[in-house]
Amino acid sequence: MVLETPKGTRDFLPEDKIIRDNLVKTLKEIFELYGYNPLETPALENYETLSSKYAGGSEIMKEVYQVTDNGGRKLGLRYDLTVPFARVIATNSSIKKPFKRYQIDRVWRDGPIKLGRYREFWQCDVDVVGISSVLADAEILSLTSTFFRRIGLDVIIKVNNRKLMNSLLDFAGIKKELQEQTILAIDKLYKIGPDGVRKELEEKGLADDSIAKVLSVFSSCDKPAEEILKKFSDILENKEGLEEIRSLLDACKSFGVDNVRFDPSLARGLAYYTGTVFEVYLNDGSLSSSLAAGGRYDKMIGNLIESKEEVPAVGISFGLDVLADAFALSKKIPKKKSVVEVFLAPIKTTNACISILKKIRDAEIKADMDFSGKGITKNLEYASKLEIPYVIIIGDSELKDKKVKLRNMKSGEERMLTLEQAITEVKK
Amino acid sequence: MVLETPKGTRDFLPEDKIIRDNLVKTLKEIFELYGYNPLETPALENYETLSSKYAGGSEIMKEVYQVTDNGGRKLGLRYDLTVPFARVIATNSSIKKPFKRYQIDRVWRDGPIKLGRYREFWQCDVDVVGISSVLADAEILSLTSTFFRRIGLDVIIKVNNRKLMNSLLDFAGIKKELQEQTILAIDKLYKIGPDGVRKELEEKGLADDSIAKVLSVFSSCDKPAEEILKKFSDILENKEGLEEIRSLLDACKSFGVDNVRFDPSLARGLAYYTGTVFEVYLNDGSLSSSLAAGGRYDKMIGNLIESKEEVPAVGISFGLDVLADAFALSKKIPKKKSVVEVFLAPIKTTNACISILKKIRDAEIKADMDFSGKGITKNLEYASKLEIPYVIIIGDSELKDKKVKLRNMKSGEERMLTLEQAITEVKK
Repeated sequence: MVLETPKGTRDFLPEDKIIRDNLVKTLKEIFELYGYNPLETPALENYETLSSKYAGGSEIMKEVYQVTDNGGRKLGLRYDLTVPFARVIATNSSIKKPFKRYQIDRVWRDGPIKLGRYREFWQCDVDVVGISSVLADAEILSLTSTFFRRIGLDVIIKVNNRKLMNSLLDFAGIKKELQEQTILAIDKLYKIGPDGVRKELEEKGLADDSIAKVLSVFSSCDKPAEEILKKFSDILENKEGLEEIRSLLDACKSFGVDNVRFDPSLARGLAYYTGTVFEVYLNDGSLSSSLAAGGRYDKMIGNLIESKEEVPAVGISFGLDVLADAFALSKKIPKKKSVVEVFLAPIKTTNACISILKKIRDAEIKADMDFSGKGITKNLEYASKLEIPYVIIIGDSELKDKKVKLRNMKSGEERMLTLEQAITEVKK
Repeated sequence: MVLETPKGTRDFLPEDKIIRDNLVKTLKEIFELYGYNPLETPALENYETLSSKYAGGSEIMKEVYQVTDNGGRKLGLRYDLTVPFARVIATNSSIKKPFKRYQIDRVWRDGPIKLGRYREFWQCDVDVVGISSVLADAEILSLTSTFFRRIGLDVIIKVNNRKLMNSLLDFAGIKKELQEQTILAIDKLYKIGPDGVRKELEEKGLADDSIAKVLSVFSSCDKPAEEILKKFSDILENKEGLEEIRSLLDACKSFGVDNVRFDPSLARGLAYYTGTVFEVYLNDGSLSSSLAAGGRYDKMIGNLIESKEEVPAVGISFGLDVLADAFALSKKIPKKKSVVEVFLAPIKTTNACISILKKIRDAEIKADMDFSGKGITKNLEYASKLEIPYVIIIGDSELKDKKVKLRNMKSGEERMLTLEQAITEVKK
């Protein structure tokens, strides 16, 4: 019989799960500190919701795991947390706006498996609906910055604006119907270089003079923000996007976010973004994937409910799997094989040990003990294998003296202490 | 377009999700206090794993959501967390035993929807593998008892033993092939009474004298444990199950668990239990569903890996959805609409307010502010609707005096304070 996990999915044994749980705990703390409230939506969605033309688009639908229920209804496993969020907003008119929510949950995409890409993975999303000011965008970047500082990863946040991008393409004479594809090519500027972008644009059928203009416009992407803004200000007639990115950069200063870099070539693949876009990378470049990404999507929710009115929204999604990888790379936190802080090894004193175990747990110490009557050598071996920091050994003589023998598993030192002293020592 | 959740699934808006998250947090704390480590398995499993004859059985397979991936592989959404746990143990020979793990996660069953039953729901499981002593069973009941005491619910834990049940049926002259069905009828003794059980057993074709014997054996289920044990000891030849339940009751005393009740009619539906079984109910009977249930299954894991050797295991599963219902019934904790502790309302002082917001968050206070330039009335209305306890109002005069105006939203009292004083007040 097949006892593997399905292709593209994984088990997480304690040493990995403990790290993932710690990351989730910190994300949850920061999200709530910034006033976001938890929301849960089901893993299964109606297929019709997922495939709405205002949702993720036709490319992503190829990767949806389809399910038909016993009643013949067509369902699917969600591919992101944004579409379900939009559905919740669209169907709960009683929700008071601005509404800030977070969701840390699984999503599924039945796509190609590459290094660091899985078919079942976790997204950690914050989104706010009902604020059109870029102050909301800047606050999300402040949250992002605070989170990475707290977990000790040095990151750079690249920002751009889709309206600016479109006005630059207008300036370069690119027709509206070719702009989306041109944007996808420019997005790769850092990866494939100007020559690579030129080749891709040629293949897409862009005229040589348009390509030259595109490349000249985006050639200064690595210059200081002020210089790029000045250049764009000189050439652009429609300055809306330009003003938005300028306001965003100013707002980031108000929020004290100092690791933002304006990058006019940054696009983000998804079609639904309407303004600010951002992606977060390790500053030392040791991981090519982004750790988090998002942007503003002012039209999706209104479209989903077929309303003429815009429902402004902006959000970011942290990838738990890539965060765990970055965390492992940084080696800042050693892996732990067990949460247990102290292990009790009775020497024919099981019943007395159970009372002691209870007192240790009452003191909020994570504790475990041997129930199988194993010898002291085997018990020490077990605790050592699981890297449990302390073992308490209790035999008849300890009981008679009303003491316990506390062994520090790292140093090997053993001390005879009262239970209260031992508890204080373990708690240190 | 359909913007509903799929049948049998639900969204949880913040006021419900906050309560669920708190329950999960407490469960996680208690599980770790008892030395259980976190484990994660994928939501999708190979269909072959789920349908193994040693797994959940044919009845549950009717309720499995089936999925075929893009590569044509047959998968399914898991219906419990026990089978995936057994798979992990079966495929990771490096796992050191005893191995204590917990998993708090979604499961899916495409079955009939009744009050309190959903198609997507959460189980919170602890299981330990590698200990055959009933001390492990008693420790799980101690954990259960500690959890319910911590959340303030008064519960009773019913316990029984499957071996005892089988030996009682042997005594009553019930053939082996009829024992499983007889057990399911007896399990309903409290619900349908002796006459109901008699009727069911008649329909199943049991002889009248066997039925009379069964009913006489189980007639004393509500008597004190000692009395029942004495009676069974007198009539039984095979005393293995009897000795096990006696040891379990003794072990519960060692662990200080005082809310256990021996109930010889308790069976639990699933076929894989081999010894101790238990179910937890509200003591006042206000909920007919069990809040948690489990037992010992010493054969399943060995069978899954086709090993001759037994791999002893015991565990319990807490139902998050029924726990949330019980919690709501008990009304011990009022619902909260938002985690936000203080809301900042600037009066044309947005930039200065952003700096103050940062300082409040640096003090680990969950804070939010208005970015849309709304008037004070609208901001107070918003904070009041979300039941946020404090609002800080900042206009030019406050900035000039280096003070903030702190409004207690419950009492309506407003005080001019330094930011530090306000932080201290909110933190109280």
